[in-house]
Amino acid sequence: MNTSVILSKAEFLEHWLGHRTLTRRTIEKFPEKELFSYSIGGMRTFADLVKELLSIAEPGLRGIVQQKEEPYNHDIGLTTKEALLAKWDEDTPKIIDLFNQIPVEDFHKEYNLFGEYKFPIYSNLLYFVDNEVHHRAQGYVYLRSLGIEPPFFWERY
Amino acid sequence: MNTSVILSKAEFLEHWLGHRTLTRRTIEKFPEKELFSYSIGGMRTFADLVKELLSIAEPGLRGIVQQKEEPYNHDIGLTTKEALLAKWDEDTPKIIDLFNQIPVEDFHKEYNLFGEYKFPIYSNLLYFVDNEVHHRAQGYVYLRSLGIEPPFFWERY
Repeated sequence: MNTSVILSKAEFLEHWLGHRTLTRRTIEKFPEKELFSYSIGGMRTFADLVKELLSIAEPGLRGIVQQKEEPYNHDIGLTTKEALLAKWDEDTPKIIDLFNQIPVEDFHKEYNLFGEYKFPIYSNLLYFVDNEVHHRAQGYVYLRSLGIEPPFFWERY
Repeated sequence: MNTSVILSKAEFLEHWLGHRTLTRRTIEKFPEKELFSYSIGGMRTFADLVKELLSIAEPGLRGIVQQKEEPYNHDIGLTTKEALLAKWDEDTPKIIDLFNQIPVEDFHKEYNLFGEYKFPIYSNLLYFVDNEVHHRAQGYVYLRSLGIEPPFFWERY
């Protein structure tokens, strides 16, 4: 490996996919009813947070690859846990495919994500992962408050 | 820049420091009493979560740089918000200095963090940031549940 690379493209993807696995486990831990109804402090339900993640990951990456600056849409109308998990699983191979289409030399090019967030591609992609970790952690608190043990933070395989 | 670099060493540090700024803002939002007493679902207080972060960031990085595999110690005995913030601010320049001492070609070398977590250095450092985002998000839920608006997620400057 080139010695100036602290994190390769493949390692970044692996890191993201590990987080996606953990988020999937977190969705699975929720009882159907509470997934769509439970919240704390006026926040969104975990289902709504997951729909935000779904509306960012694959659509955002598709925008980057196809250079389309379409606005995002969080209202993706999934109403069961099974449907959320199915969409999650449907998107994962698309994410791998799209990510692999980004030329390594493009990661520092700016892209106006969703027609709104003009940053280098690496920065937008880090934001996707950070945002997933952030919202998933909110799901952890919901689970704890429901008396349900969340998955271990390192269960990313 | 070398075109195979998707994220440079300096960019990773900047990313981490941005998260540290946001975590600092989150600590600031807590009332003194609730910082040390409030929790949800049997979880740790936000002060305890912050002490975990403090016991990982600078000590972990110091271990990496000095090649010492000492166990971590979360019980760092800070009992006021002022003391937590002071320690946070004291550690930031140390983190910058230590991080800059890691040779770029070492990021893929394995290091047995805290004598326990044997992974490449880049992987351990990603874990530091992920863990901070994760615990900070739990603090966001505590704040919301206390009727306090958390900082914006993008306030990292």
